[in-house]
Amino acid sequence: MADVSSASAAFASDNAAPAHPKALDALQQVNDGSAPSYGADPVTRHAADALRAAFDSPDAEVLFAFTGTAANIIALASAVQPWHEILCSDVAHVLLDEAGGPVRLSGAQLTRLASDDGLITPDELDRRVARRGEVHHSQPRIVTITQSTENGRVWTVPAIAEFVDHAHALDLLVHVDGSRVANAIAALDVSPSEAIGDADIVTVGGTKNGMLFGDAVLVRRPEHFSGIHFVQKQIGHLASKHRFVAAQFLALLEDGFWLETAAHANAMARRLSTGMTALGFQLASPVDANEVFVNLDADVHHSLAQCYVVHRPDLGEPVVRFVCSWSTTDSDVDDVLATLRELR
Amino acid sequence: MADVSSASAAFASDNAAPAHPKALDALQQVNDGSAPSYGADPVTRHAADALRAAFDSPDAEVLFAFTGTAANIIALASAVQPWHEILCSDVAHVLLDEAGGPVRLSGAQLTRLASDDGLITPDELDRRVARRGEVHHSQPRIVTITQSTENGRVWTVPAIAEFVDHAHALDLLVHVDGSRVANAIAALDVSPSEAIGDADIVTVGGTKNGMLFGDAVLVRRPEHFSGIHFVQKQIGHLASKHRFVAAQFLALLEDGFWLETAAHANAMARRLSTGMTALGFQLASPVDANEVFVNLDADVHHSLAQCYVVHRPDLGEPVVRFVCSWSTTDSDVDDVLATLRELR
Amino acid sequence: MADVSSASAAFASDNAAPAHPKALDALQQVNDGSAPSYGADPVTRHAADALRAAFDSPDAEVLFAFTGTAANIIALASAVQPWHEILCSDVAHVLLDEAGGPVRLSGAQLTRLASDDGLITPDELDRRVARRGEVHHSQPRIVTITQSTENGRVWTVPAIAEFVDHAHALDLLVHVDGSRVANAIAALDVSPSEAIGDADIVTVGGTKNGMLFGDAVLVRRPEHFSGIHFVQKQIGHLASKHRFVAAQFLALLEDGFWLETAAHANAMARRLSTGMTALGFQLASPVDANEVFVNLDADVHHSLAQCYVVHRPDLGEPVVRFVCSWSTTDSDVDDVLATLRELR
Amino acid sequence: MADVSSASAAFASDNAAPAHPKALDALQQVNDGSAPSYGADPVTRHAADALRAAFDSPDAEVLFAFTGTAANIIALASAVQPWHEILCSDVAHVLLDEAGGPVRLSGAQLTRLASDDGLITPDELDRRVARRGEVHHSQPRIVTITQSTENGRVWTVPAIAEFVDHAHALDLLVHVDGSRVANAIAALDVSPSEAIGDADIVTVGGTKNGMLFGDAVLVRRPEHFSGIHFVQKQIGHLASKHRFVAAQFLALLEDGFWLETAAHANAMARRLSTGMTALGFQLASPVDANEVFVNLDADVHHSLAQCYVVHRPDLGEPVVRFVCSWSTTDSDVDDVLATLRELR
Repeated sequence: MADVSSASAAFASDNAAPAHPKALDALQQVNDGSAPSYGADPVTRHAADALRAAFDSPDAEVLFAFTGTAANIIALASAVQPWHEILCSDVAHVLLDEAGGPVRLSGAQLTRLASDDGLITPDELDRRVARRGEVHHSQPRIVTITQSTENGRVWTVPAIAEFVDHAHALDLLVHVDGSRVANAIAALDVSPSEAIGDADIVTVGGTKNGMLFGDAVLVRRPEHFSGIHFVQKQIGHLASKHRFVAAQFLALLEDGFWLETAAHANAMARRLSTGMTALGFQLASPVDANEVFVNLDADVHHSLAQCYVVHRPDLGEPVVRFVCSWSTTDSDVDDVLATLRELR
Repeated sequence: MADVSSASAAFASDNAAPAHPKALDALQQVNDGSAPSYGADPVTRHAADALRAAFDSPDAEVLFAFTGTAANIIALASAVQPWHEILCSDVAHVLLDEAGGPVRLSGAQLTRLASDDGLITPDELDRRVARRGEVHHSQPRIVTITQSTENGRVWTVPAIAEFVDHAHALDLLVHVDGSRVANAIAALDVSPSEAIGDADIVTVGGTKNGMLFGDAVLVRRPEHFSGIHFVQKQIGHLASKHRFVAAQFLALLEDGFWLETAAHANAMARRLSTGMTALGFQLASPVDANEVFVNLDADVHHSLAQCYVVHRPDLGEPVVRFVCSWSTTDSDVDDVLATLRELR
Repeated sequence: MADVSSASAAFASDNAAPAHPKALDALQQVNDGSAPSYGADPVTRHAADALRAAFDSPDAEVLFAFTGTAANIIALASAVQPWHEILCSDVAHVLLDEAGGPVRLSGAQLTRLASDDGLITPDELDRRVARRGEVHHSQPRIVTITQSTENGRVWTVPAIAEFVDHAHALDLLVHVDGSRVANAIAALDVSPSEAIGDADIVTVGGTKNGMLFGDAVLVRRPEHFSGIHFVQKQIGHLASKHRFVAAQFLALLEDGFWLETAAHANAMARRLSTGMTALGFQLASPVDANEVFVNLDADVHHSLAQCYVVHRPDLGEPVVRFVCSWSTTDSDVDDVLATLRELR
Repeated sequence: MADVSSASAAFASDNAAPAHPKALDALQQVNDGSAPSYGADPVTRHAADALRAAFDSPDAEVLFAFTGTAANIIALASAVQPWHEILCSDVAHVLLDEAGGPVRLSGAQLTRLASDDGLITPDELDRRVARRGEVHHSQPRIVTITQSTENGRVWTVPAIAEFVDHAHALDLLVHVDGSRVANAIAALDVSPSEAIGDADIVTVGGTKNGMLFGDAVLVRRPEHFSGIHFVQKQIGHLASKHRFVAAQFLALLEDGFWLETAAHANAMARRLSTGMTALGFQLASPVDANEVFVNLDADVHHSLAQCYVVHRPDLGEPVVRFVCSWSTTDSDVDDVLATLRELR
């Protein structure tokens, strides 16, 4: 664990944000007497129903996990055998930021595809799906994409629909890492199901969108993920006091509230990126959702780091990441812009 | 997920209990603004210090996980190579109730030892530690014991001290699965460190003792568990909003409050077992902590199951388990005893 | 690797024997020009046909591996998922002498069953197959038995038929580790298929029965082992110059020659055990095939070890193993008996 | 297994070649009476000594395996933990042609580096070694290179020396996949140790250079590969009749004979590539060793495939591979050139 610093974590990540009061209230409300453990309680049933309803997926199975990393691993490891191949973008969280967990759990090769900030073309998929049926080569089985991407980009509705259909035509399953899918849905202003195309399995983020903890797995084609409940249990993500993760989802999904928090985070990112551009800074990627990637030279970055914890995804590049959350305020944004104005 | 039933889960498990108000309050108190994620926050630092202090282990490393299964896997998988052997009792949670997770993650053979309700003799250890240095055989590396055991027994201070020392003399590491270690400490009325002997690594349970979720790993000899932080991350148990697991530990450890809740659970189990004995039922195991194992014939068990969710550990045996928790009340106990009186 | 000693390895193991001249000749005969690699050659096709014919299994798939350990791992690892459980006897080679390879490759729990020298009762199977459908527990999937067993015992035709049928009734697959199946077939004097009952997959030993190297896997129900060719490749047992393993099988299977070599080894074991009994030594197990287990006190064992490499399976017991092979002669047996007579 | 075809496998691969008579003779010569198994025999000791001497590595450990895939896996899986990262070229056999075995066994991420036909620059290594010490990211631990490469290129002595030293400076171990290292040594006309630089562990190919089967692992820094003997055993590559793999190495290493066979294969590849160029075909890569990669349009390739089994590494490209071996003759080369002349 890193040292504590006095710098503000306000833009470090959306998981540096506090929990939304609604999430905390939900915990209080379900904390009433004993309840069957491991998901056999009514709160869990209702939360699963709510998630199915939100994604127009009445036949989906729903599982909950404590973290997005776990949700991704549960989805991927239950999709493959150790002689399969998992395809992902070159900036994928599952490739770069899960310490190799998806590979360790699945035993499968993870192959990186070229991408534009995480957006992959069907052509690139064609290039990488090869040697089907050859015993000497890992067999491509599933491709995982991220919506919105790790670099803050959003797949448009036609783009994700085309990509998923193309993957299916190549006999690949499709996983959507949706740790920030609410931000994508809000940015696209469409229904949740439109934002994920015909994906077979989706990680639905809660932690980065106001919950204390919790990400869900929506399994839309359960026949391809038959051992998924075992994988969840085997890595310690079948919560015993299960109502506490379910209750938060139930509270935030109600009346589409989770999309309001996401829309707010997106709006703050737009305010921030607009301000940066006005100050003469150059954005490294278009700002589609709640993340801002901006080029800052080493001096500016160093000075800024005295006041703000910010993430530099690639040490060889001048790009610095700012993430907005449900809790980011106008004045938070204006404060960091004021700091940047001085450092300019 | 199992069906919801109208039967009471009051004695189903200590993880069917609600969260203690102190745990919920702690969440509220730390939910204040942004904080560095992944454990780099001051709450985490203080909670780790509190755990080290509680166990008189100033040099220990401390990690937190969301569940006891995860804490056990993190401890065991970081101790071994895939050609090592892990030894455990024939009733161990890691053997019977973690869906094979410890084996999947470690790749190592898990060998069951004969035990008296989870209590293993040094002689049995001698019998099973064999073929050191032979390339044809998995190499014994770590033994895991449970305090208090899965069958509700408590290792006495001399017994655990002798066992751990004997294991060390056999060049084995020792893990204590302490998902109910508070119940053991309270039952023994000794300091936490006395209740675990010279164990190298300990899972310290929070979930079963009043928290919403959360178990800790106390690594007293970190040099033998060098990749432990990676394992934690790889199975998705490095919480991003880390303060929320740490805060609960901090709140319950304060002034030894966690031992009061455990002592209460133990007292309720004594009240229950005394009542059962008075009704003529026969206990299947001595009641050392907060679990009661009693022989109930099939008719009584069936009738009882209409009102209470209870667990039958071995379908071939007439034994039924009742677990008391921080939230069990005298009247809960008296109610179930009244029901049993009628069914007798 | 152990030190070289001047003691004779004549009874150390059947894998200490040289290769039968027929096996060497077969290598010479197929060493004629280039041939497609990885099994796409005609010799491999003919050898696979010969094995199918020998076992009356026209629809079986056949794979070859270099060693029996590999053949076992390929069979077991392709049968299970990491949340499955593999059952075996308490003296199984897969449990005790493969360095944990079957667990490492499968990720599955390996559970030992009580046995009489490797012979398991259907009742013991009933006791151990439990908690089907429970997500907390590894799911029993396959049981592996050894014919003839590691302790030199042979399953009778009715015994193995009953056991396999019972396992199937419990929804278990059955693997037969047949590294010495030729010895069992010869001892029973039945057809190969009778000696293995309705087993789903069988390891057919070659190395211990006169080949330089090579064991086969006969997959009688390929639908349950769908990734088996990948597992074979992934652990480096898809030979490139495949004709050299196939040719040996072809040569030894021809006209049932492999059963003659096995019968000879069995006869030598009988001669040896009869002689030992006549000298007053006590057999530790009945001698059904080509292995003799005899009780020798420490002094006798120590003196014998100056002249003969012999194996003491359990250091805590006085039992010593002698193994006869296709190459053991009457005078080899008489020589060791003469030595024992002096040491008596 | 693929279908048998009447097309010649003469240029399909060096593993389509027969065994050299010296290798077969060696088997015959050591097939004399019983011998200690699992490598405890004198032939194995002498073969290990011969390999150490050949590579000027008196303190190296030596292990033998049946195949090159196995030798690579044993080397890599014993070097890493599941949170480590293995780096390799984009044409590496371990990445493309081992069915994911290295990943399955190690649990570690395998990251592909850009290369020139398998030759990697130190700069590319710099770019990919990142995020040391970060718990979120797999930790780079070992880089594997191939000498000669899968595309028939040879690392020069200064190039491999620089690369290995650079990798060491980055705190990486270095593995050399030397399934064709003899071809590289012969092409460079240097001592074996010069051809591998200061590599920590080397796979030394036998199968592709005249043996029936067998590749060795030369462990020059055994302290970094402490469990290597267990990995070898766990995947079934500790031969019981160990003298038969060792004897072949002993025979071919004697008086540097293995380099003569390799030099012959290289000469045949030169004859072939010179002939192809004269016919107007365009080489896809320089011919440094015993492999020729040539561009053939679809029609020519299709017609050629009626007579010769040849490999097309990438279905999207017009490149076809021809491999020469110890057994390729001038007339073999002239015959295929005559065929190509007609198809031109």
